[in-house]
Amino acid sequence: MSRALNLHAKLQGKLTIEAKYDIDTADDLALVYSPGVADPCLEIKADVTQAYTYTWKQNTVAVISDGSAVLGLGNIGPEAALPVMEGKAILLKRFANINAVPIVLDTQDTETIIEVCKAIAPGFGGINLEDIAAPRCIEIEQRLEKELAIPVFHDDQHGTAIVTLAALMNALKIVNKSADTIKVVVSGTGAAGSAIIRLLKDFGIKTIYAFDVHGIVTLKTAITEHQKMIATLTENLDNVLTVDEALVNADVFIGVSAGNIIKSSMIKRMARRAIVFAMANPIPEISYEDALAAGAAVVGTGRSDFPNQINNVLVFPGLFKGLLEVKAASVPQSIHLAVAKAIAECIDETDLNATNIVPSVFDPRVVDNVAYAVTTTVKTLRAKGATI
Amino acid sequence: MSRALNLHAKLQGKLTIEAKYDIDTADDLALVYSPGVADPCLEIKADVTQAYTYTWKQNTVAVISDGSAVLGLGNIGPEAALPVMEGKAILLKRFANINAVPIVLDTQDTETIIEVCKAIAPGFGGINLEDIAAPRCIEIEQRLEKELAIPVFHDDQHGTAIVTLAALMNALKIVNKSADTIKVVVSGTGAAGSAIIRLLKDFGIKTIYAFDVHGIVTLKTAITEHQKMIATLTENLDNVLTVDEALVNADVFIGVSAGNIIKSSMIKRMARRAIVFAMANPIPEISYEDALAAGAAVVGTGRSDFPNQINNVLVFPGLFKGLLEVKAASVPQSIHLAVAKAIAECIDETDLNATNIVPSVFDPRVVDNVAYAVTTTVKTLRAKGATI
Repeated sequence: MSRALNLHAKLQGKLTIEAKYDIDTADDLALVYSPGVADPCLEIKADVTQAYTYTWKQNTVAVISDGSAVLGLGNIGPEAALPVMEGKAILLKRFANINAVPIVLDTQDTETIIEVCKAIAPGFGGINLEDIAAPRCIEIEQRLEKELAIPVFHDDQHGTAIVTLAALMNALKIVNKSADTIKVVVSGTGAAGSAIIRLLKDFGIKTIYAFDVHGIVTLKTAITEHQKMIATLTENLDNVLTVDEALVNADVFIGVSAGNIIKSSMIKRMARRAIVFAMANPIPEISYEDALAAGAAVVGTGRSDFPNQINNVLVFPGLFKGLLEVKAASVPQSIHLAVAKAIAECIDETDLNATNIVPSVFDPRVVDNVAYAVTTTVKTLRAKGATI
Repeated sequence: MSRALNLHAKLQGKLTIEAKYDIDTADDLALVYSPGVADPCLEIKADVTQAYTYTWKQNTVAVISDGSAVLGLGNIGPEAALPVMEGKAILLKRFANINAVPIVLDTQDTETIIEVCKAIAPGFGGINLEDIAAPRCIEIEQRLEKELAIPVFHDDQHGTAIVTLAALMNALKIVNKSADTIKVVVSGTGAAGSAIIRLLKDFGIKTIYAFDVHGIVTLKTAITEHQKMIATLTENLDNVLTVDEALVNADVFIGVSAGNIIKSSMIKRMARRAIVFAMANPIPEISYEDALAAGAAVVGTGRSDFPNQINNVLVFPGLFKGLLEVKAASVPQSIHLAVAKAIAECIDETDLNATNIVPSVFDPRVVDNVAYAVTTTVKTLRAKGATI
């Protein structure tokens, strides 16, 4: 039995729900339950926003998955996804002191998932969608963001995109290149890849080549709505057909696809002072050592056993902390850019180097800086009249 | 601001979710989250029952309401119902050390509620339905009990019925009457009333008159399926039309209807050594003092400020404790009878008297006795080949 399995068997669940008030007497009972509880009920009935005052809604999010795309394990179903959702919840507690409830769904139907999330939303201050397969996850998030009065965030998309951009911001400082002139190759156009591409565009990167398992994504070859959306954001030069070709003179490679698909020879043909983020888990597109040996100037992976772990634990705790603090109703895209910047700025200029482009997940400044970026962005947008 | 309101504002939610494992190092992270968490995921994927071994499912129930029939407050909606669901959850923790997650639903459609409960079920070991209006609640519970692999219990129905029967069992000992010869009048045929009637029949009571707001429920007058179900279980003598008439020579009055509908004169016409359970909340059908003064031998209410509080807090914590202990898939009706008996037996014969027919909710034997009744009933049924 592995250490992790043993620990899970011993813990019998990584979370516990505890009472914040001791019930020792009939008077205690009458205060927290009938008849006293009728008072907050009536206050909330008169003004539904008072749920943020009198209940745990103000500090509680749901972590929801249908178990269709869990870690690198694929479609393993709701029960098997539960340890991951508990893990996500324990991280939200550890890093941002947020109550998070793991909810795993016995359905993989887009409309049913949307209906269930909308039905259970009143008791939560936010929803973190997790490990739902693309492209379904994109429609679900977009619909819920529009139709619900609480923020909905799909971490596999935007958490990954935000921390990738944070890492890229710092890596660009090291190699002294700027967003508007670099050429970027993205391998993988699922949940993470498509969100990365959108955020890189928002950041001002003009030249992006996107690849899925079938090759380059172009308007000519795009079949699904998802492919068309990506194609409109990316470069479609007819003479580029393979990742190999696209990497010639590329400044940045971002991999959110599959292990061992990039060879050292391909890295060698990239532009000088190249940046390589090989984030497939647990096996990167090219190993940290091989990418460095092939001449890359800055290398990042998703692994904790190498420098520059590009990990969305840097994002979601602080993000939800900020969203809950301002009782946000949604997550405007401009928050993504602000959070990426806040994470990048956790590395002081004097500490910035090729093996230190992202802060440690244990750096206590991260969650506060991220939360601050969220609350100031929301307040600024609200001051301009936006309903968020 | 009332004390209860003040307390709720101060607590900002009566529950907190806490981590059962401290994350201090990268190694801790790798154990509770990626990559270690993949191990329990794969074990559960291979055998879905292992969710009871590696996750919080084994000790966690959902407390679900649509906010349509909350306490005596009526249809106040999901957000306003949340303080009650948190209250229920805190009681489950206090009395049975069970994790309970309050879930309030933004729908009052029977099919949608069923769909949502089924969708979120995989992460829970049981579902407690709460404060859902009748007759919708009955269909929802019956369908879920049939279609789900975890036990579903509607406390307003069966919790109330079970504790009422427990109180009646002890009251009958005091007045020295037996189930098969007594005449019982039940006022109220909603969630609680209909479940009480069914359980009284299971207990062997033959003569029951049931009244709803329109008067006596008979096969002649019954319109809805719900009324017909009740009519088939109860007495339909043509010459009885009112509660007033039915109470003449009745041995037991059980009220789960509305405050102040029973007059002293009506109690006076009951049989000698009459039992009166006036459980409307917060105003009983007749006050404790008035019922006693009118000659009732044993009086119970739902209130904590009088003797004999007939309170379902005596039922649901131990019931779920037992169900979780045996990983039950359902709640067979015979459990209801066994639990009522277990609660009644918490009063020793020497302590039994007209002002002490039910144990205190703070009596620590209650939860263990109830849980034991549940587990032995399930084990007995399983030994006979039942799938529970």
